[in-house]
Amino acid sequence: VPRRPDQKEWIQRQAALLWAERGYHGTGVQELCEATGLGRGALYYHIGTKDELLYEISIGSVVRMVGEAEEIMALDLSCSERLRLLSESLMANIAERLPEWVVFFHELGSLRGAKRDEVMAQRDRYEALWLQLAVEGQNSGEFRKVDPLIVKGMLGMHNYAYVWIRQSGQKTPEEISHIFSDVLLRGLVSDPTP
Amino acid sequence: VPRRPDQKEWIQRQAALLWAERGYHGTGVQELCEATGLGRGALYYHIGTKDELLYEISIGSVVRMVGEAEEIMALDLSCSERLRLLSESLMANIAERLPEWVVFFHELGSLRGAKRDEVMAQRDRYEALWLQLAVEGQNSGEFRKVDPLIVKGMLGMHNYAYVWIRQSGQKTPEEISHIFSDVLLRGLVSDPTP
Repeated sequence: VPRRPDQKEWIQRQAALLWAERGYHGTGVQELCEATGLGRGALYYHIGTKDELLYEISIGSVVRMVGEAEEIMALDLSCSERLRLLSESLMANIAERLPEWVVFFHELGSLRGAKRDEVMAQRDRYEALWLQLAVEGQNSGEFRKVDPLIVKGMLGMHNYAYVWIRQSGQKTPEEISHIFSDVLLRGLVSDPTP
Repeated sequence: VPRRPDQKEWIQRQAALLWAERGYHGTGVQELCEATGLGRGALYYHIGTKDELLYEISIGSVVRMVGEAEEIMALDLSCSERLRLLSESLMANIAERLPEWVVFFHELGSLRGAKRDEVMAQRDRYEALWLQLAVEGQNSGEFRKVDPLIVKGMLGMHNYAYVWIRQSGQKTPEEISHIFSDVLLRGLVSDPTP
């Protein structure tokens, strides 16, 4: 029987919903069987161990973001325009994959060893792309000289949306991204030479 | 035997360290007994149930922040200056009470009923103070007109530091706050009338 990738993703979503609500350690495999309607055998066949499932959910979210960010960084656009696109891509992804991000943010500590290292390496790679943009903008004079730690602040501004974005109601992820990047860019961009 | 408040705080810190590392649901009362060197009886005497302990840790962090923010808001200072102070106060508190904040951010969903409502009401009250400042600044013309959702972004920028502030090494919480509020204020403050 070939594994259907869409079923695997569907199981990942059910697990993410369950863990986002009750925590990884607070949820047994039995509850995942109930949520998916699968028996233990079928579940293990599709996802391997509970540990592997957590890894797949976590790495899936970050790898997707790294891919999008690399595409954006390769575009022939100003640093400000690419910053807007990075912001849009991140906010859209948080909104679309909310339970997966809750699991990512809350359960990174539940991953161990090589799996944890790999997820953190991808996360660092994502942050490095934002940092690269900030540095590029400063070197070209498009941005002011600002401590690189600002990148952690910009990412936090977006990432933390996983806590409240469900309640933000009327605004689309794109609109939220624009509110944030307008203020950030105004804060970052150099004064026009008089 | 009177309960000593410093011992209660010390137990809260041990629990926060344990739960920040392994999760609230992933940790039994036995592990808390081992971490504190207290027997079950003594532990329950000091802290009540595990549930109450989670509540005390969570509400303690937010109530402290609300108190500081109310004091800052009452100062006879410009909106920009008060925003700087709010930022400093929040970043200092996250750095000082890191395990408690990890528990707060990760385990809010583990609180139920009235306890959860009370913690969330205090959290909303804290956010309302930042929002009040943003609105005041816009009404007086000190700040540009920006969607109030920016307040969630500014808070996220700070709050998310609980993930990385341990690794930020050389920078003090005050320095981090200044990097962030410099960019935010430049993004928010109105252009000087020519």
